[in-house]
Amino acid sequence: MFEKNPVCQLLNIQYPIIQGGMVWVSGWRLASAVSNAGGLGVIGAGSMTPELLLHHISQCKTATNLPFGVNIPLIYKHSDEFIKICVDENVPVVITSAGNPKTYTNTLKQNGIKVIHVVSSTTFAQKAQEAGVDAIVAEGFEAGGHNGREETTTFVLLPSVVRSVSIPVIAAGGIATGQQMLATFVLGAHGVQIGTRFIATYEASAHENFKKIIIEAKEGDTFLCLKKLVPTRLYKNRLFIQIQELENKGASVSELLEFLGSNKSRLGIFEGDVENGMLEVGQNVSIIDKILSAKEIIDEIITDFKKTYNNLKF
Amino acid sequence: MFEKNPVCQLLNIQYPIIQGGMVWVSGWRLASAVSNAGGLGVIGAGSMTPELLLHHISQCKTATNLPFGVNIPLIYKHSDEFIKICVDENVPVVITSAGNPKTYTNTLKQNGIKVIHVVSSTTFAQKAQEAGVDAIVAEGFEAGGHNGREETTTFVLLPSVVRSVSIPVIAAGGIATGQQMLATFVLGAHGVQIGTRFIATYEASAHENFKKIIIEAKEGDTFLCLKKLVPTRLYKNRLFIQIQELENKGASVSELLEFLGSNKSRLGIFEGDVENGMLEVGQNVSIIDKILSAKEIIDEIITDFKKTYNNLKF
Repeated sequence: MFEKNPVCQLLNIQYPIIQGGMVWVSGWRLASAVSNAGGLGVIGAGSMTPELLLHHISQCKTATNLPFGVNIPLIYKHSDEFIKICVDENVPVVITSAGNPKTYTNTLKQNGIKVIHVVSSTTFAQKAQEAGVDAIVAEGFEAGGHNGREETTTFVLLPSVVRSVSIPVIAAGGIATGQQMLATFVLGAHGVQIGTRFIATYEASAHENFKKIIIEAKEGDTFLCLKKLVPTRLYKNRLFIQIQELENKGASVSELLEFLGSNKSRLGIFEGDVENGMLEVGQNVSIIDKILSAKEIIDEIITDFKKTYNNLKF
Repeated sequence: MFEKNPVCQLLNIQYPIIQGGMVWVSGWRLASAVSNAGGLGVIGAGSMTPELLLHHISQCKTATNLPFGVNIPLIYKHSDEFIKICVDENVPVVITSAGNPKTYTNTLKQNGIKVIHVVSSTTFAQKAQEAGVDAIVAEGFEAGGHNGREETTTFVLLPSVVRSVSIPVIAAGGIATGQQMLATFVLGAHGVQIGTRFIATYEASAHENFKKIIIEAKEGDTFLCLKKLVPTRLYKNRLFIQIQELENKGASVSELLEFLGSNKSRLGIFEGDVENGMLEVGQNVSIIDKILSAKEIIDEIITDFKKTYNNLKF
């Protein structure tokens, strides 16, 4: 079905499904499970020290012979070291986000690494293509965690990005089912990046309390906040309500930073304090109702994709 | 192609395309042109007095023999009179929004009028079905003008609404092309409601200055604001920047109301003061680049829909 798919050909994978790199969620267990199931598993470096990233890459190589990736948010202080580790370890794919794609793309490509850059606007997509990346992830407003300032949704962003670049485009934001995956292909996508759904896996390193939130959350339970810092989509827990109260009163950047302190994502996602920690999730959290293995999720998405396609008759 | 489509059968129209009712934009000229082109044209009553609505309905009947509709936002003071006029005039379809669907649905249906209710959440969709409406418009965050509080996008909202009701579901928000229309059908929609694209028509009563904005606007040029009042998606003009500055400082409801004053939509959309007036547009404004007739738009959308469907091969 996907033999000629450009994302599968580029990354040498069976299905054009990339697991989104997620802080405190996607270590080597999840990444290798996704890769072994035919997608591209991705280690989320954003919450790691260089030593820990090296450990996860080593473990991932032991757990799978198939391609996997590392996601590096370029705003983090360890970016230089992360890139060096990926080069030294011959990581097959690096996905960069939240920064300038010019900084590392040449270095990575010269070392035989495929480079994908995440964008939230058509302008950034064109700049990433100019920087020489191999593919684009176009991420809509419905996505979890860090988000674009323009708030363009997948429905509007995706066709525009596809029209504006000649490299493969991977859709992100609002995709958790094969039906949604097919809709992105109608809008011109060549692959999908799925984050939130993979939190609800046995292999994700998220705390059980957070996984429970994922399967119980309902429509409207997430919201984009912290727009004066970095726009971030969070689950509406106690911390979120406190943030919203501050924002409604017109809190400044420094007041917000002082309130947040540090390590709130670790507290919520990894340590399981789901009221006082920061829970980064996408809008699709509402449709996730069970914990499965990464392989079960990928198989279900592909089955659903085929079924939806076969039922589409005019 | 749409002979068995439930929206076409319900409304007795050729194509399952409903033109969104838009204040100061959709009078009898636009509505009758859309209906004559095979869609459902809709008079937007929200900016009218009862006398003016009666005039537009009469003119519309003269200009088309095909079904048309009237959109009534139930928050406006004239709702009771609008409903009475629609009943007296045997208007074929009434689309209600921004209020309780229980209030008028029975009255309208007893008089042989088809009733469609606009919602922004799955919970409201279920309540509208319980109230007895004939179909639902499920409108995502990317839509122009008044918007839901939960900010759920079309990608996430639509499949959930479709799963939760048994009546036909019409997608709105983010749809301006046949490609986007087909994507909504993949997500389970039976029809689409298109607003912003129909502003860029010869028949729309919007001021030429506003139409010029529509064809020149770029990605990221709209934003959802006024969340403390009614969340509203606006074009980013001088008025919007002033609103945003007030909101960033934590302005209260009364401060916002005092700043806005009245008739700002009329000023911008109808009188053409595109810097100081309020311009309600959806995110798709970025892809619209020419003014056409309503018939040209509908023909183009249907051609694009068929082409995208025929090219979708796995």
